[in-house]
Amino acid sequence: MPTLCLPHVLFPEHRISQQQMIEHLRRLHGDQPGTALSERMIRNSQVQQRHLLLPLDELLQQSDITRRSILYERAARDMACAAARQALVNADLTPSAIRMVIVTSCTGFMMPSLTAHLINDLRLPATTVQLPIAQLGCVAGMAAINRARDFAALDVDNHVLMVSLEFSSLCYQAGDKQLHSLISAALFGDAAGACVLRADDRAQGVRITAGRSYLLPDSEHFIRYEVKNSGFHFALDKAVMHSIKDIAPVLERFNQDHQRQGCADNDFFIFHTGGRKILDELVIHLQLPEDSVGLSRTSLAEAGNVASVAVFDVLRRQFESPPKAGSKGLMAAFGPGFSVEMSLGQWHA
Amino acid sequence: MPTLCLPHVLFPEHRISQQQMIEHLRRLHGDQPGTALSERMIRNSQVQQRHLLLPLDELLQQSDITRRSILYERAARDMACAAARQALVNADLTPSAIRMVIVTSCTGFMMPSLTAHLINDLRLPATTVQLPIAQLGCVAGMAAINRARDFAALDVDNHVLMVSLEFSSLCYQAGDKQLHSLISAALFGDAAGACVLRADDRAQGVRITAGRSYLLPDSEHFIRYEVKNSGFHFALDKAVMHSIKDIAPVLERFNQDHQRQGCADNDFFIFHTGGRKILDELVIHLQLPEDSVGLSRTSLAEAGNVASVAVFDVLRRQFESPPKAGSKGLMAAFGPGFSVEMSLGQWHA
Repeated sequence: MPTLCLPHVLFPEHRISQQQMIEHLRRLHGDQPGTALSERMIRNSQVQQRHLLLPLDELLQQSDITRRSILYERAARDMACAAARQALVNADLTPSAIRMVIVTSCTGFMMPSLTAHLINDLRLPATTVQLPIAQLGCVAGMAAINRARDFAALDVDNHVLMVSLEFSSLCYQAGDKQLHSLISAALFGDAAGACVLRADDRAQGVRITAGRSYLLPDSEHFIRYEVKNSGFHFALDKAVMHSIKDIAPVLERFNQDHQRQGCADNDFFIFHTGGRKILDELVIHLQLPEDSVGLSRTSLAEAGNVASVAVFDVLRRQFESPPKAGSKGLMAAFGPGFSVEMSLGQWHA
Repeated sequence: MPTLCLPHVLFPEHRISQQQMIEHLRRLHGDQPGTALSERMIRNSQVQQRHLLLPLDELLQQSDITRRSILYERAARDMACAAARQALVNADLTPSAIRMVIVTSCTGFMMPSLTAHLINDLRLPATTVQLPIAQLGCVAGMAAINRARDFAALDVDNHVLMVSLEFSSLCYQAGDKQLHSLISAALFGDAAGACVLRADDRAQGVRITAGRSYLLPDSEHFIRYEVKNSGFHFALDKAVMHSIKDIAPVLERFNQDHQRQGCADNDFFIFHTGGRKILDELVIHLQLPEDSVGLSRTSLAEAGNVASVAVFDVLRRQFESPPKAGSKGLMAAFGPGFSVEMSLGQWHA
């Protein structure tokens, strides 16, 4: 049974506290109607700080997609490689044992993909399958896990290296003044994570036993990008705030289809960090104990929503206080579409 | 054994002959050194015409990534949907039978991905697995086939819808004057293709029996994009022209590992169209008869290199003159990385 090993997550050195971000937004938009509302919402977001690729004042000078792309590529290669090397060590595998490399990142665009650079930089086998995923946003980390699981099911040597990397700060648009833009500007953080799915059971971690994908019908407007000269413009519809209510029965059904009575029948939970409201709604609509979202809340507080990296950051924290052997777990993430990727697993000590 | 069914390929209504393109480039760059050389190379490219999303004079007005992205999204949704509907009919499947949708496109960027739009527009099941691939360029169509095959191997009902769509004309950069840019401007064409891989053997087509990926070491500079305010800038290194010599032993070995003496031991061939030189080199280095690249040459002549759609356009032409039942086939495509995706199959009548 394929096993998700200890991930390695790296954060860029620069930090911004939520108080600093609020002050920045006030300087920029202090005279706009709605500033008080956005400040209140940002204070309630439970994000305490975020990591940034560059100090904020330098970021503000990178105002077009030409300059953002150059910065993205340079930093992406360095951080992806460093995270991947440690993830391989964590999985007790050499680069030569990898058969597929998946990269998820929605905050920049490169061709050739990082998958090609990683094969060269890490000296993975030349026959390594490349799977770059750029368009699944926050759900991409879990999508990578589910695709890796499919591939691992084909052969007991089909070990998969997954790298998720997001520089959301390179998508910060200081000119966007709508409420949802101000909230997003203070929500998303930068990070790079890597994780190996071993196709065998020779490692500690989560043995993945089932996976499923789901698209909430006619929800394309919930989360989306506009691609402009100034870069990617992220847009959130307020419908997202109530999406979990509609997704809850899907998650319950998924559990019931796999020898569980429901979501609450799990012992540990790896949830995408989303935002405070998303985590609150998971507790309410899945009837879960508050500590089921505890690791996600800590990740959100310390790093913001790190998009496709979030699931690996939450999983890394779970390894720090490992469940008992045999514990049952649910993993789920949400993203544009509105899409859900979910997995079930068992803790292997 | 999974079966690749008859693809459906659509071309936008506008056309440009190679003579018209040469005249356009001469008007634009007539006073540049090297114009005579580029004209000679374009005349030798064996491209006779290409299809364009818009007439050339209108395209020239869409000079930034903001406008290009709006055009891309609108046309992509329409054409992807239309191609996919016919591909489903060709495979004798209803939308409800699809379990995975793969979209490949490197000439625009959307989030949510076209995979989400297709699930909604075609009413595919909400649990359809989404796999959008944006960063594999010309090799992405074959990569989709190999990933679809992996997924189909897991369950006899895992039917996969693949959609490849390229509007290379939206990446035309009239300001780029280097030789490789002028050649590219006259090489790539617009098209949308769709194809179903049935996980069972209840259709006519290519039963896929083996697949492999390969990255030529340290070749990231061969084919790449720069992402700028003006859009995607395609860059070709002349090393590409000699890549097939290095790839030939990889293709031979792949065949030898699967009960064939070598590439020449196949009865039919579905090669990415690449360019004239790539097709010439395949004949030389794989010691193949000239007609092995015949369908690829016809596709190249009539539509240009349609990037990730090319493999489906060549396959469609193969269905028009189907090989005998049981004939052995080789499929291969090349793209940035420098990456190769290859498959072996048998014709199922």
